[in-house]
Amino acid sequence: MSVTVAVDAMGGDHGPSVTVAAALAFLDAQPDARVILVGIEPALNEVLGRARSPARERLTVHACTEVVAMDEPPADALRKKKDSSMRVAVNLVKDGTAQACVSAGNTGALMAIARFVLKTLPGIDRPAIASQLPTRAGVTTALDLGANVNCTAAQLVQFAVMGSALATAVEGIERPTVGLLNIGEEDIKGNDVVKDTAELLKAAPVNFYGNVEGDDIYKGTTDVVVCDGFVGNVALKVSEGLVVMLYDFLRAEFTRNVARKLAAVAAMPALGAFKKRVDPRRYNGATLVGLRGVVVKSHGSADAIGFRNAIAKAHAEVVNGVLDKIAREIARMPATAGDASPPLATVGSDAR
Amino acid sequence: MSVTVAVDAMGGDHGPSVTVAAALAFLDAQPDARVILVGIEPALNEVLGRARSPARERLTVHACTEVVAMDEPPADALRKKKDSSMRVAVNLVKDGTAQACVSAGNTGALMAIARFVLKTLPGIDRPAIASQLPTRAGVTTALDLGANVNCTAAQLVQFAVMGSALATAVEGIERPTVGLLNIGEEDIKGNDVVKDTAELLKAAPVNFYGNVEGDDIYKGTTDVVVCDGFVGNVALKVSEGLVVMLYDFLRAEFTRNVARKLAAVAAMPALGAFKKRVDPRRYNGATLVGLRGVVVKSHGSADAIGFRNAIAKAHAEVVNGVLDKIAREIARMPATAGDASPPLATVGSDAR
Repeated sequence: MSVTVAVDAMGGDHGPSVTVAAALAFLDAQPDARVILVGIEPALNEVLGRARSPARERLTVHACTEVVAMDEPPADALRKKKDSSMRVAVNLVKDGTAQACVSAGNTGALMAIARFVLKTLPGIDRPAIASQLPTRAGVTTALDLGANVNCTAAQLVQFAVMGSALATAVEGIERPTVGLLNIGEEDIKGNDVVKDTAELLKAAPVNFYGNVEGDDIYKGTTDVVVCDGFVGNVALKVSEGLVVMLYDFLRAEFTRNVARKLAAVAAMPALGAFKKRVDPRRYNGATLVGLRGVVVKSHGSADAIGFRNAIAKAHAEVVNGVLDKIAREIARMPATAGDASPPLATVGSDAR
Repeated sequence: MSVTVAVDAMGGDHGPSVTVAAALAFLDAQPDARVILVGIEPALNEVLGRARSPARERLTVHACTEVVAMDEPPADALRKKKDSSMRVAVNLVKDGTAQACVSAGNTGALMAIARFVLKTLPGIDRPAIASQLPTRAGVTTALDLGANVNCTAAQLVQFAVMGSALATAVEGIERPTVGLLNIGEEDIKGNDVVKDTAELLKAAPVNFYGNVEGDDIYKGTTDVVVCDGFVGNVALKVSEGLVVMLYDFLRAEFTRNVARKLAAVAAMPALGAFKKRVDPRRYNGATLVGLRGVVVKSHGSADAIGFRNAIAKAHAEVVNGVLDKIAREIARMPATAGDASPPLATVGSDAR
């Protein structure tokens, strides 16, 4: 199957200087794939003019006239910029020209546009942001990483089902274990939504492991970790900040004096391998799950290697039939599970 | 001033084998301080019998008959174990025999007992768990790290005032900046409680910086970071898990083959300094703020060095008059700020 990915070539901190090189590198590695670069023509042509890759012929340019700014209110991006590179890339998925789209632009705008244009899958109230995080054991699929600040128990269950389908489709895990992110204190174990979610998950079509705590994410205790978007976003950003701090400290210690600098030379292979192992570019690309189309969000600051990985992730999701898998799993849910009240009442009367 | 610290000698994963050595090491470094070890006498005497430190004479044993188990429901610990080492240590603060207490036991039980015995300071609805975290710039005082799952805006403001007083008292920061932990997406910036809190903080007696995101904690963007206990606990545990994973990866890379192992020898000074810099033992000891007494919780798995640091933290808080500073700052708050509704209504009509 030849898959076409629509790329918002203008999004992110770097725009075409990163997105074009990334698209070509992706095409080099995927000889069947095609890419449509959506962007402002002069800007794109300037970068493309320098491209010498044979992959160039599987890359087409789709001109647009507008760009969503990184700090633009999503509602404005949605309502006022109908010809933005982001909007047009999503439109290409909607009309079937492309099977997936990728953008490094404004997350809120991408979510608003994707939701408006593509709509959610049947049985899904709200899309979530999912991503693979490295763990001691491999990777964990975590969601929601920032799309939904307030979630009902029923929505968290939908996230669990979607995350589970994603782990199966992309990571090839047969019955992925699903952990519900919670905190450990006995008397205050979780808030009411989390408690209700745990009850619902016992009846949901997922391999529910139970509650997990923050440190379980990187331990790799479960294949999927589910939480609301506020908690998930904090967890993700805290991790980013901590890694940067630790790198800084490591660098400072290895450059403190001449002896340390010499040691750094000897240590370079190990330090390089370490850095590569936790390189955020490897994990770049968060999936907007729950939509009727594959949409991947790259980190805004991603370089060409990171952005290429985001395109490759979108491509892999199409090849692995993520949308079908999610739709199939959601269909297996109890009929009422899309609505918070009835199952909660039922479960409550059984369990208490 | 001679400060006496009551130590729950039985708490934590290791009990007297850690707490006694830690108490003696603390006393060695603080020639004016005294420690009361609260515990089961035979267990304590066995360890104390081997102690040869001259600090031994500033250490007394207070016998008790019970121990709170690490997994015991806090309500049971509170109601049924009136003579536990934890309860008696808190009682010693209540009756003025000690000025602070330290325990590595069950957090929920310690919070329940401390709250019941000591009560909260005037103007404080609920105590919070605060701790110093290392940052690129120094340290940040973060709270709540797990005591309160659901917080009102008024409670979060109280946390901000307490965290600010703590940063001033312990870190010596004159007007500590206070950040409110939030997420960055434009259209969904925080939930309603966080939004209301931001409005209230503008009028509170703190140096309010504004919203911060997860990565700002380790950047050291602000001196204090405020969040609810669910988010704070997840952030803390995620950090712990990530550090363990990164250490694992680093160790794996430096032991992969003979060449790497030789490089590790050369790199040892830098790696050792790095490890020391982020050694969790340095930051061991979380303060239960908002109580009429200084109560410090050590990590359950702390060794003698970590537990000694927790005792030293309790001691420093007494010496620096943390309770007075918190009480004074809380007294400066608008009279209604202890109650969520009136100030919210007032602020809302001004600001919207």
